[in-house]
Amino acid sequence: MDSTGDCQGRWVVHGERTLYDSPWVRLGKADITTPSGDRFEHHTVTLPSAAMIAALDQAEEHVLMSYRHRFVPDVWGWELPGGLLDPEEAPEQTAVREVLEETGHRIGSVEHVATFEPMIGTVRSPHHVFVGRDVELVAEPTEFDEGVYEWVPLAKVRSLVAEGRVQSSGTLVALLHLLTL
Amino acid sequence: MDSTGDCQGRWVVHGERTLYDSPWVRLGKADITTPSGDRFEHHTVTLPSAAMIAALDQAEEHVLMSYRHRFVPDVWGWELPGGLLDPEEAPEQTAVREVLEETGHRIGSVEHVATFEPMIGTVRSPHHVFVGRDVELVAEPTEFDEGVYEWVPLAKVRSLVAEGRVQSSGTLVALLHLLTL
Repeated sequence: MDSTGDCQGRWVVHGERTLYDSPWVRLGKADITTPSGDRFEHHTVTLPSAAMIAALDQAEEHVLMSYRHRFVPDVWGWELPGGLLDPEEAPEQTAVREVLEETGHRIGSVEHVATFEPMIGTVRSPHHVFVGRDVELVAEPTEFDEGVYEWVPLAKVRSLVAEGRVQSSGTLVALLHLLTL
Repeated sequence: MDSTGDCQGRWVVHGERTLYDSPWVRLGKADITTPSGDRFEHHTVTLPSAAMIAALDQAEEHVLMSYRHRFVPDVWGWELPGGLLDPEEAPEQTAVREVLEETGHRIGSVEHVATFEPMIGTVRSPHHVFVGRDVELVAEPTEFDEGVYEWVPLAKVRSLVAEGRVQSSGTLVALLHLLTL
């Protein structure tokens, strides 16, 4: 760090203007100088923060996932329950709420795995990944557009990833983390 | 699948209009019907496709990474070399080109690990992750805004992830994959 508290290699932002704004997406352009001294405008995209959770059964041999369609990239794949953070909601609360709404399961204990930026060069949208244990079926699902959840054997996860059937960044991070345990 | 070739659970897109367009970002709104029958408009964001590569040394004990700043989310972290696909470029070519430009290393053999969508609910931007082997230093780097690359011990990777020092989705996917080998 130098005397201003900056590390060498910081990109300097002189300002940012908004091109489009909504509760779901904000598009901007930032006036920046790169570490090597180039100054130009660079797009920025601000999207809501999200959380997802790999809920494990008692034996830790299965994980709750649904095989579902995503219309924006038009892909099908296995995904964990999860969703966008409500205002004032902590990421862990979002993960627990979403798994209850989408699958009817209550999570007893939550472990944080990672927080990442899905497109770190252009987008602001922290994504929080958790593992959930002490999982109990307590209700019927109340959301029906996220696919039908089932207990997928962890023993199948490596081949699902290799076959390209896991395309969601957060799901991929959680499943690969489980394979490292 | 039903008689139209659709699987149950498909989200139907009736049309999509463009709100903002540029070579770097396209913002749209799609008119959709969810599987349960709700019809509404949903934002879409189209961003360029990207590729990144975990280049391993001969002993497969170190990986090439730089500790760098990303101004949009304003975070610092370890990242693999990589970047956006040029027009007509295959993802593997992008990965090999970027590691040469950013680090001066030529990659002898490339293995595909995963292709994922970083924000699968809102964004189209396939991200391609590779592992590179037979790595040789052949030139000086020609890009200087991506940080200073060094050989990071794979034995340190688990703690870097646990400490939150890996925030890029593609880097996280590649490193966790290496930990599962």
